[in-house]
Amino acid sequence: MDKVKVGINGYGTIGKRVADAVHQQEDMELIGISKTKPNYEAVMAQRMGYNVYTPSDKTSKMKDGGIKVAGTVEDMVNEADVIVDATPKGVGEKNKELYEKAGVKAIWQGGEDHEVAGFSFNADSNYNEAIGRDYTRVVSCNTTALCRLISNIDREYGVKKCRVTLIRRAADPSDIKKGPINSIVADPVKLPSHHGPDVQSVIPSIDISTMAVKVPNTMMHIHTVNMELKNDCSADDIKNLLAKNPRMHYLEPGITSTSETMELARDLGRPRNDMWENCIWEDSIDFYEGELYLLQAVHQEADVVPENIDAIRAMCELEKDADKSKSKTNKAMGIGTK
Amino acid sequence: MDKVKVGINGYGTIGKRVADAVHQQEDMELIGISKTKPNYEAVMAQRMGYNVYTPSDKTSKMKDGGIKVAGTVEDMVNEADVIVDATPKGVGEKNKELYEKAGVKAIWQGGEDHEVAGFSFNADSNYNEAIGRDYTRVVSCNTTALCRLISNIDREYGVKKCRVTLIRRAADPSDIKKGPINSIVADPVKLPSHHGPDVQSVIPSIDISTMAVKVPNTMMHIHTVNMELKNDCSADDIKNLLAKNPRMHYLEPGITSTSETMELARDLGRPRNDMWENCIWEDSIDFYEGELYLLQAVHQEADVVPENIDAIRAMCELEKDADKSKSKTNKAMGIGTK
Repeated sequence: MDKVKVGINGYGTIGKRVADAVHQQEDMELIGISKTKPNYEAVMAQRMGYNVYTPSDKTSKMKDGGIKVAGTVEDMVNEADVIVDATPKGVGEKNKELYEKAGVKAIWQGGEDHEVAGFSFNADSNYNEAIGRDYTRVVSCNTTALCRLISNIDREYGVKKCRVTLIRRAADPSDIKKGPINSIVADPVKLPSHHGPDVQSVIPSIDISTMAVKVPNTMMHIHTVNMELKNDCSADDIKNLLAKNPRMHYLEPGITSTSETMELARDLGRPRNDMWENCIWEDSIDFYEGELYLLQAVHQEADVVPENIDAIRAMCELEKDADKSKSKTNKAMGIGTK
Repeated sequence: MDKVKVGINGYGTIGKRVADAVHQQEDMELIGISKTKPNYEAVMAQRMGYNVYTPSDKTSKMKDGGIKVAGTVEDMVNEADVIVDATPKGVGEKNKELYEKAGVKAIWQGGEDHEVAGFSFNADSNYNEAIGRDYTRVVSCNTTALCRLISNIDREYGVKKCRVTLIRRAADPSDIKKGPINSIVADPVKLPSHHGPDVQSVIPSIDISTMAVKVPNTMMHIHTVNMELKNDCSADDIKNLLAKNPRMHYLEPGITSTSETMELARDLGRPRNDMWENCIWEDSIDFYEGELYLLQAVHQEADVVPENIDAIRAMCELEKDADKSKSKTNKAMGIGTK
């Protein structure tokens, strides 16, 4: 089978990671990425040997900045079988017309509304429904981690109700524009936070309520999770269940924080110290008055990356079996082995 | 009736605030405070006109530091009717022998275990049980805020179950020793956090589970609260109920964070920008699938202060009616009017 040709529109936090992951897959060809500025990320893309495309009106600026331009974004879209849109929130929606015109498949990220794609994706939740689709949205980092967790437990023991508080990092490590510096922000004040409805866009049957705050931290989110289950099981049953999934990672002894988890990722030699897995405190998994409780940390920059790869594989019908796709993705990226 | 003589053992974050609050009450006399170091807080106490007592082995150091010493800590304890122990966590327990020997009543703070006093106090929860007692523990800032909220709602509508996540400030504003700088800490990893059992030390009948994280912030805690109630009511019923209690403060329009709440306190002209009340986002109060949700912020340095005053009044039988004591405390401190 010919490799599927993938273009990455937008080469920021998510785009550059998805590009690398596509580049690692045996059944995919990275035809190029797009950048609008000749900044260090464009330079790095070029150094990686990736074709750099740009909007036509940016061509001279890019060339002036020392970037060899492979063509326009339209050229990339026309050449691709599928585009992963990792442009800033709100921009992706505007690109839809371009993808429709070119008749190319497209994947948006969680910053866009469900309606842009009409279908929201998580590999552990609804891989089969993505098969052959033209448009898909890979949900955000928090929603991805929740969908994984809920789907795995729901399949085995049935999830009756889920109550989650998300303690969200305020900004990404390289973000120099955002606060807060010394504050806890109720975000949003009006409940629920968007994460609950967002999970329901992937798993419509789930009863979930979410509240969220934003804190002065660039290193990962933490979720405090409460679940009522339909079927009886023990904490050990849950521990054993989650241990089977390579996208669930039990944090190593002595780690109590997100910053130590990022230090672990560096020690593990992870590219960009990415933790693609739900990072779960195994000791936190417990039942109280018949309800399940646990704590997990989520690397906001990384956990959606393998999901994008699986979405490509489903949409382009490279693999009809969810588990096989996830295994291919995991193996190529080193998830569960690195 | 003669004024009750109150001594404050330990003049740090809580002690200095309780001293000021005692000083404001018509039925109490602040006989003095204790300090072990001649630092700026000792200087400020002296400037306030408070008698400064010190352990006998610190007397010369205090005098060398320019502090006029009124006597030893033993002298203060012997002269007092009741001691508010606001010494660092763990030290209070060691002081118990001293109080027993002097036959003086004593109040400890939430840093000590319930067992030190054998009784844990919140004015909204169990004032009557404190009447005439020799020993009482005023629970910590987080537990105080939870007890207030739960007791008020429980009395009116019955609380069946309570699930809370606490997002805790890492350090007080003047604390130069503590982290984290850029991290979210699962504290504790093993659930539940101590807050649930702590609430139960005041309200034993309550079914409550708590999880907690620590974040890089010095300005207040936030609680995300979920409650199942026994009796039907609407969000407006809850809003109206809490509005009646001066120790519940609905945050002003546009405030979404703890740092803005502290800015509000400064604008309100509060002493030390103290918010003694539970700071609640009225817009967050809502029902989802029959369960109550809300967000509240807690000023870690301030909310226990009026509780200490009410504890003194109950223990010394200055007032047998909880509401009247709370009104006196509120009026003298400016709670509900400032």
